Amino acid sequence: MGMVGGGPEAFIGDVHRKAARLDGGVELVAGAFSRSAEKSKSMAAELYLDPRRCYATYREMIDSEQALAESEAIDFVTIATPNDSHFEIAKAFLEAGIDVVLDKPMTFDLRQAIELKKIVEKSGKTFALTHNYTGYPMVKLARDLVQLERLGELVKVVVQYPQSWLTNPIEREGSKQAEWRTDPKRSGAAGCMGDIGTHAENLTEYVTGLRIAEICADLGTIVEGRKLEDDGNCLIHFDSGARGLLFASQISMGELNGLRINVYGSSASLYWEQEHPNELHFFEPDGSIRIFRRGTDAIEPLSAAAARASRLPFGHPEAFFEAFANVYKNATDTMRARYEGREPTALELDFPGVEDGVRGMQFIEAVVASKGSWVKFPK
Amino acid sequence: MGMVGGGPEAFIGDVHRKAARLDGGVELVAGAFSRSAEKSKSMAAELYLDPRRCYATYREMIDSEQALAESEAIDFVTIATPNDSHFEIAKAFLEAGIDVVLDKPMTFDLRQAIELKKIVEKSGKTFALTHNYTGYPMVKLARDLVQLERLGELVKVVVQYPQSWLTNPIEREGSKQAEWRTDPKRSGAAGCMGDIGTHAENLTEYVTGLRIAEICADLGTIVEGRKLEDDGNCLIHFDSGARGLLFASQISMGELNGLRINVYGSSASLYWEQEHPNELHFFEPDGSIRIFRRGTDAIEPLSAAAARASRLPFGHPEAFFEAFANVYKNATDTMRARYEGREPTALELDFPGVEDGVRGMQFIEAVVASKGSWVKFPK
Amino acid sequence: MGMVGGGPEAFIGDVHRKAARLDGGVELVAGAFSRSAEKSKSMAAELYLDPRRCYATYREMIDSEQALAESEAIDFVTIATPNDSHFEIAKAFLEAGIDVVLDKPMTFDLRQAIELKKIVEKSGKTFALTHNYTGYPMVKLARDLVQLERLGELVKVVVQYPQSWLTNPIEREGSKQAEWRTDPKRSGAAGCMGDIGTHAENLTEYVTGLRIAEICADLGTIVEGRKLEDDGNCLIHFDSGARGLLFASQISMGELNGLRINVYGSSASLYWEQEHPNELHFFEPDGSIRIFRRGTDAIEPLSAAAARASRLPFGHPEAFFEAFANVYKNATDTMRARYEGREPTALELDFPGVEDGVRGMQFIEAVVASKGSWVKFPK
Amino acid sequence: MGMVGGGPEAFIGDVHRKAARLDGGVELVAGAFSRSAEKSKSMAAELYLDPRRCYATYREMIDSEQALAESEAIDFVTIATPNDSHFEIAKAFLEAGIDVVLDKPMTFDLRQAIELKKIVEKSGKTFALTHNYTGYPMVKLARDLVQLERLGELVKVVVQYPQSWLTNPIEREGSKQAEWRTDPKRSGAAGCMGDIGTHAENLTEYVTGLRIAEICADLGTIVEGRKLEDDGNCLIHFDSGARGLLFASQISMGELNGLRINVYGSSASLYWEQEHPNELHFFEPDGSIRIFRRGTDAIEPLSAAAARASRLPFGHPEAFFEAFANVYKNATDTMRARYEGREPTALELDFPGVEDGVRGMQFIEAVVASKGSWVKFPK
Repeated sequence: MGMVGGGPEAFIGDVHRKAARLDGGVELVAGAFSRSAEKSKSMAAELYLDPRRCYATYREMIDSEQALAESEAIDFVTIATPNDSHFEIAKAFLEAGIDVVLDKPMTFDLRQAIELKKIVEKSGKTFALTHNYTGYPMVKLARDLVQLERLGELVKVVVQYPQSWLTNPIEREGSKQAEWRTDPKRSGAAGCMGDIGTHAENLTEYVTGLRIAEICADLGTIVEGRKLEDDGNCLIHFDSGARGLLFASQISMGELNGLRINVYGSSASLYWEQEHPNELHFFEPDGSIRIFRRGTDAIEPLSAAAARASRLPFGHPEAFFEAFANVYKNATDTMRARYEGREPTALELDFPGVEDGVRGMQFIEAVVASKGSWVKFPK
Repeated sequence: MGMVGGGPEAFIGDVHRKAARLDGGVELVAGAFSRSAEKSKSMAAELYLDPRRCYATYREMIDSEQALAESEAIDFVTIATPNDSHFEIAKAFLEAGIDVVLDKPMTFDLRQAIELKKIVEKSGKTFALTHNYTGYPMVKLARDLVQLERLGELVKVVVQYPQSWLTNPIEREGSKQAEWRTDPKRSGAAGCMGDIGTHAENLTEYVTGLRIAEICADLGTIVEGRKLEDDGNCLIHFDSGARGLLFASQISMGELNGLRINVYGSSASLYWEQEHPNELHFFEPDGSIRIFRRGTDAIEPLSAAAARASRLPFGHPEAFFEAFANVYKNATDTMRARYEGREPTALELDFPGVEDGVRGMQFIEAVVASKGSWVKFPK
Repeated sequence: MGMVGGGPEAFIGDVHRKAARLDGGVELVAGAFSRSAEKSKSMAAELYLDPRRCYATYREMIDSEQALAESEAIDFVTIATPNDSHFEIAKAFLEAGIDVVLDKPMTFDLRQAIELKKIVEKSGKTFALTHNYTGYPMVKLARDLVQLERLGELVKVVVQYPQSWLTNPIEREGSKQAEWRTDPKRSGAAGCMGDIGTHAENLTEYVTGLRIAEICADLGTIVEGRKLEDDGNCLIHFDSGARGLLFASQISMGELNGLRINVYGSSASLYWEQEHPNELHFFEPDGSIRIFRRGTDAIEPLSAAAARASRLPFGHPEAFFEAFANVYKNATDTMRARYEGREPTALELDFPGVEDGVRGMQFIEAVVASKGSWVKFPK
Repeated sequence: MGMVGGGPEAFIGDVHRKAARLDGGVELVAGAFSRSAEKSKSMAAELYLDPRRCYATYREMIDSEQALAESEAIDFVTIATPNDSHFEIAKAFLEAGIDVVLDKPMTFDLRQAIELKKIVEKSGKTFALTHNYTGYPMVKLARDLVQLERLGELVKVVVQYPQSWLTNPIEREGSKQAEWRTDPKRSGAAGCMGDIGTHAENLTEYVTGLRIAEICADLGTIVEGRKLEDDGNCLIHFDSGARGLLFASQISMGELNGLRINVYGSSASLYWEQEHPNELHFFEPDGSIRIFRRGTDAIEPLSAAAARASRLPFGHPEAFFEAFANVYKNATDTMRARYEGREPTALELDFPGVEDGVRGMQFIEAVVASKGSWVKFPK
């Protein structure tokens, strides 16, 4: 595994490394961690990397790694840079024949997303997008309960993703994280809706199997002087005719990382929240609530995917790293299968890919275009 | 106390009686419980009422009670009929000089509401509207925390009121409750949004002190053949510039009576849910959550209204009846003050009145008119 | 209904009145509320009682009421005095042929309890003891789930009842409530274990159907100078061979009225807590948790008693008063049945009686005698 | 890092590996994973280990590793075998000058524990015992709140650790885990109380700073034919005079891994449960509950240890692996400090050691000896 981005001040780069490392089959051996050579080197040293494989640019990484023996060269690269460089870097690795794990949102704009989709398809390489929240076992169970028609026909979805971390203008107080995320030149057309709204959108489509058909979005910038919206509320119509609400926020005091979803069907409903990820609430037709708990006997008969995504016995909680690692696990198992000339199984292929990335960019374009009116998604 | 409506099959009539009776200062002595004389009599018998004070019509009740000695006649009437008759009955009692407690929504349409407001004002009588959810002590605490500026400036409000009881077409299966509530001739222009959306709207304005300025509503009728909407999702702009979401539903499987509200401010936020009414979640600026519990030492210094609205020591839960009884308590204390020629205190006057009713009808008209576009509220 | 005790400063007297009044079939018409004539009169006035039926002593009440016409005289009396006078007052009313509702614990000591049991049996009158926590619908459901063998064979029970209200020596700071409860002359041999430990014991035996066979208790007096214990921890052996723990406390900071119970069986288990009484957690054999909610379709097929004990539709929470009222409801329905010469049904007879009172006094004697060693209960 | 035990069927061995690996500074390079050479080799292959460093016995591992260059040889060993071999293996590595991480409980009996303590002290090596639950950040916060006297003087502790996994006789149905844990020859004198009771005991002493002075234990074997107890309930007296209860169970249906603790002080109290580890409930003197959440601003000023033990921003839940990894982190930081000739800091030294192991064995001996009577702990 090689890595582009994820320097010393990055949060998500470290998450990628820990998640990739957790199961023991992946080793980080090369990196271009920062545009600053110094920072990149210090990161490499901290990670006990061979200094010769700490590169100044991703181009250099591609060239040098391709010159190595196959058994030594990286098998795939993780890209965890700001959004504006996702496209060119991913394109370069894919065209060099190297599998890619890319942080979300996929690209800077929809045009790039559609282009990248073509590149991935042409390359035949494995491409994973870290919409990590679908890596949680209970999210997989939720999806499978919907697929098993335990909820009947879906009639309504409420998905919310409130956070509080941008309640103050910390992008002007030295926070690197906040700086690029509120800068349209690096983040793209959307702030909050790109950073976390796309997670909510991805979770919704993953769990329900529905596709958003049209959306009416009311975006707001609460912190004065901020260049991108930090709050957004949307009405949704799905392709099936079901209705929904999606809202996300970075200025909701008291909320930490409050991704949560209600899916209502004609005969039952479910609820899941990211901050207590080991439980899934299933509302039975008789008015009782059944709380499914990760790792218990109830899970496996309903969801092989949820069972496979568990590492610990019941009651020993798993959390964010493990869900993130599940994206890696399925993506690298898929890579391994393909190296071995084997068709990956459906369970192995259960990770977000380039199509999810296109949906995410469509979502961003739609909510930005909406301005309080209904906007249709491209079919 | 006299009563119009609240016959043997009614749910809310019995609630009114129990709530009025709880504190011991109010006695039901007269009633016209049903358009059916037989049902009315059987109700009266069940309630140990003097049969001579069980009336065939509300008109008869007014006439007969006015003929009684002041010490014997009813001091006020509770009206718990379907919405279409609220106006004329309330009008008649008010004009007869009798105080009125009226079930919500206030009238059949906005025109009647505005008219009733004039009648109430002209009559000088006490008028209470049973938006009972504002009777909960922790809701009063929430309002007072906002007033005390513990949340800073309000930036966002999310209020939801999902229920499941109309998921099936029970109005065609013999449910009286469902029948009139889904019948535009008796309920008015809205179904779900009138029955419970108005509660959500009232709770929001009560707690936040904000006024809805404009609204974009997406109503839906999920059960085929139903004549009124059974689900509605709204984007909201408040007069202060704050944004919000309000959604209500009668077809959300698994939800019982899920009224809940998040109020986000610039420095803190709060959360309350009706099904666990003795607790208020207050999200502190430092990221911890403070759960206020009814009856504890923490409450009284922050909210005299919450303290006054409690009947039991901490840990002995209070619930729906007690909140409902708080509307009666404050309304009847206000009546008593006025009988005694005393100005009611602010604490006694803390019950929903005719202005709340007008707001509710404005809300109904707005959401029905919206059809997915923004509609302004009258100032 | 008449009342002895329950004067202006009493907490539980007012609870009795509100609970008795809730359903509308019971009217308080006579009382001897306090040993102070003045306090008694002021209470009577506050309650709009006919002053002629406000009595100086319970003796006078008996004599005067017996002189009234049957249709006017009280049908039963509620006794809510400190424990030391329970026996003589209850005895007097029973021997006068008047039904009795008595606050717990039943008597001052076990000797009196056994004696009272004989008196009740001899009198043929209805006798109810307000172990009100068994009045909660979800507690009745719990009992019925055990009876239906949904838990298999019971193997372990954990019941706890922590409170905090006596953490400080408020009995020396003017609290009437605290004064008599910490005074062995009025409360009896136990403090905490008598006041609330008996509730925990009663709840345990009610829900499980098991009987405590022996107990090892570790009592403690945390507040210096207090005359009765304010904390107690017990190991328990049941007659079936099952084991358990029972602990109660009045000095557990942060706890309000924390009665809660876990019952573990060989195939499932359950959990209930008084502060959230509308829910019962049932732990399924497959590791999922089923939360039963009062009033939903799931309840009635499992427990007619729980269904009967509900007054409101699902999601409209019921709480302490309603549970207390359920003791009254079943007790007065039983009285009514007997007046009418009808055998009360099993559902009507579902209220705590004199046998529960004897068990409670056995419990108190045992825990006081234990001093950290095992003590057997009388068979 | 080398490893003894943790073969293909072991649960805890894999946990050790993932936990050690998480932060990236530790690499597993040698192992003797099983008494079966075949299983050991297959484990080594699965872990991509150099086959030459997969050893048949721990003796061989010591000898071979010592023959390697210092920069290549293992720096420490993790021992995750059944309890009966802990002592001899730990002793051998320590005497060979190799740091040790040992799974709990520390030894087979108290005699060995005391002996091992001497060996550790004599060796001067770093010794860590994986009482992993004290690795949770919120547990460290709990300890620090006690130390800061935020609870006042401690008066009562309730610690419970119920599980359900041994409700059926799975040791006779092929479960390796269950087999050795219920076998007195491999586990020692206690079953449930050794396996998880010691965790509860360790957590209690860690958080409270109190020492158990005497204990009265009621052990039970619920599953017929089982050779060790599978349930235990204890009354506790602490050295300070505070009282408590400790109970643990492997037959409590519905419970997964339910370690939870209430600590009651004279002015406040706290509650933590392992299954929701990112939150700590702190009960304020005014009756409100403050929920501290990992990673928020509230934490660091109160507990540097909790802040240091966090890896992710607030709202991104951490769980079991991360807590386990915290034992490794502090232990290996301590080792590193000593290699570098630096005195480890108090924060680095915050991991369970040989003294905790001795306390654990004292606990086991006491509860086994008690048989329902009070037994004193050695001072």
